[in-house]
Amino acid sequence: MLRPSIAPIPPGALDLTGEAVRKRRALQRGAMEHLATAGFAELIPPTFEYEEVFRRAAGRDIGPSLIRFLDLDGRSLALRYDFTSSVARVAATTFSDATPPFRFCYSGKVFRQGQDAGSGGRGRPRELLQAGGEILGLEGLASDLEVIRLVLTLLAALGLTGVRINLGHAAVLAPILDTLDAEARDLARRAIGRRDARALTDLLAEGPAATALADLPFVIGRRDALQHAALTAPPAAARGIAHLVALDEALTPPERAQVVYDLGEVRGLDYYTGMHFEVFVEGAGRAVGTGGRYDDLMGRFGTPMPAVGFALDLGALAGVIP
Amino acid sequence: MLRPSIAPIPPGALDLTGEAVRKRRALQRGAMEHLATAGFAELIPPTFEYEEVFRRAAGRDIGPSLIRFLDLDGRSLALRYDFTSSVARVAATTFSDATPPFRFCYSGKVFRQGQDAGSGGRGRPRELLQAGGEILGLEGLASDLEVIRLVLTLLAALGLTGVRINLGHAAVLAPILDTLDAEARDLARRAIGRRDARALTDLLAEGPAATALADLPFVIGRRDALQHAALTAPPAAARGIAHLVALDEALTPPERAQVVYDLGEVRGLDYYTGMHFEVFVEGAGRAVGTGGRYDDLMGRFGTPMPAVGFALDLGALAGVIP
Repeated sequence: MLRPSIAPIPPGALDLTGEAVRKRRALQRGAMEHLATAGFAELIPPTFEYEEVFRRAAGRDIGPSLIRFLDLDGRSLALRYDFTSSVARVAATTFSDATPPFRFCYSGKVFRQGQDAGSGGRGRPRELLQAGGEILGLEGLASDLEVIRLVLTLLAALGLTGVRINLGHAAVLAPILDTLDAEARDLARRAIGRRDARALTDLLAEGPAATALADLPFVIGRRDALQHAALTAPPAAARGIAHLVALDEALTPPERAQVVYDLGEVRGLDYYTGMHFEVFVEGAGRAVGTGGRYDDLMGRFGTPMPAVGFALDLGALAGVIP
Repeated sequence: MLRPSIAPIPPGALDLTGEAVRKRRALQRGAMEHLATAGFAELIPPTFEYEEVFRRAAGRDIGPSLIRFLDLDGRSLALRYDFTSSVARVAATTFSDATPPFRFCYSGKVFRQGQDAGSGGRGRPRELLQAGGEILGLEGLASDLEVIRLVLTLLAALGLTGVRINLGHAAVLAPILDTLDAEARDLARRAIGRRDARALTDLLAEGPAATALADLPFVIGRRDALQHAALTAPPAAARGIAHLVALDEALTPPERAQVVYDLGEVRGLDYYTGMHFEVFVEGAGRAVGTGGRYDDLMGRFGTPMPAVGFALDLGALAGVIP
C-alpha cells in the first residue's frame, strides 16, 4: 500500500478500470464512427491552452472553474475546459483560409475545478469524458435540425433508450430579462433557475416584464404548449417561440416524441443565441448532454460566423448502458 | 485572426487536424484492439496525479521534465509523465486484493516539459500520444519474450515495415559501472552514451572495469556478437549476456531478423533491471517505442512484483504510415 499520507489520486480525478473503461471506449468509438459517417472531421486540440482561449469563448467569468497553472514563461495556461473553445480557435486560425461550413467533431477529457475540491473531500469529478460536434458557418432551421437529429440518431446507435431532449430558445426569456436592470435581471434569472414562481412575483414590480415572466418560464410541454404560450407572449419572445414551433413541425413523429419544449431553461443564456437543449436518457440521474446555437462565439476569435453544436458526457452514458 | 499578441497555442502543444488525426486514431484503435486480443485490460488513469507518483516510479530526479501545478489544497500535481507510474499505482491500490499476473494496456497523451520551452520558441513537443502495455507479476524469459513478440506483432498489424528492436540488458554494464565511485560512474555513463571510446579510456585507470568497458559498451550485432562478447566479458556481465542469448534462441527466425543486440545502451540504467529495448521503423528519424523489465518499480508502490512492458509513440508512427 501507499503510505497513508499519500492519497492515491487527487480529488475528482478519474481512475478507470475494467467495465468502466470498456463502456466508455465502446461509447467513444461508436460516437466517433457515427459522427465521421455524418460528415464531421475529428480535431484533437491540445490538452492545455492559454487560459484566455477558454475565457474568450465562455463569455463570462469561468476563472474559478478552470484548472490553471503558469507556463515556464509566466503565461497562464488552463486544462481544456471545453472543446468548443478550442474548435473555435482552430477554425479561426488553421482553417482561416478554408471555406465554411465546417463540421468538426472531437472526443476526450475536459477538466473543471471541483467546487469543493478545497475541502479535502473527493469533490465533484474534475475530469469528464466527452464526445461532440460543431457545425460552423450555417444558420437557420436546417442546421439546428441537423444537430438535434444527430443527437437522436447517435444515441440510438449507441443503444440508448428513453431519450428526451429538453429544448429551449435563448430568444424567449433573454429579450424580456434584458428590459430589467442588472440586479433584477440576475435575481430573476436565479428565481427562474430554481423554478420559483413566488420569488419571481415578489421580485418584479407590475409591468410588462412581470406579466411576461409570470407564465413563460414555466411552460414545459409539446407543440401545443408552445402554441398556447405564443398567444399571450410579448412580441419580444415571439421569434424564439415561433422558431421552436417550426423545429417541431420539421421533426418526424418518432423524433418529435423525444422532444419536450422548456421555455424556462436559463442556464445557458450568456452563451447560447438561439435554440439550446439538454439531453436526458432513461436511468441517468443527470443530463447526459447539452447543445445549442452560439452565433456570437466565432466572432470572439475574429472570424464571425454562426455556430451550433452539442457535447455528450460519456461517463454519464456509461452509467446506463449494459 | 487572433490578436497578434496571442500565440494560438502554448509552445510544444499539439493541435491536430485532418490526416494527422486520422492516422493517430487508426494507430490507436489498431494498437488497442491488438492488445485486447492479446489479453491486456485497458486502464484509463487520471490526466493529472500527485507529482510524487511520477517521482516514485521514475526513480530519479524527473522534476524538471514534469509539467507541474498546485492543487487547490496546495499539494503538487503533475500532468501524466508516463502511464507506467499510474499503472503501478493502480495495481498497488485498486488491484491490491487481486492475484497477479496482471496484463494492463493504455493509450493517451503523456506530458513532458520541453527543454527549451522557456526560450519562447516552439520547443519540443510537450504532449505525446502513446499506447503501451505492462505485464505485472511475471519474471523470466517467457514474459520478456511475450513483450518483444507483442511489439513485433503489433507493429506488423499496424502495417509498419522495416521494424528493428535494439535490445540490451541492464545487467551487462550496470554491475561493472557499480564498481566505480559515483563521479567516475557518472562520467563513464555519459561517455558510453556518446559512444566515446577515447573519453572512456582516458577516464578509467587500468583495472578490471577499464578492461571490461574497453569493448563491452561497443558490442552491437546479432547472436554471434553476444557470444563473442561473452568469451571475454567479466563474470558480473555474464548473466545479462546469457539472458540475451537465451532470448535470441527462443525467437523464431523472422523475429530474430528484426532484433539487434546493443550492449552499450545506458539511457535506461536507473530504471530497467533486465532486458530493455528501443524500437525503430523504416522512415522514422527517432525511436518509435521503448520497453523493458523494471522489477524494482512495483516495490516503490509497496507491492513488490516483477514487471515488464513497452510504450509506442503514436505520433512518431503516424509520420511513417500511409
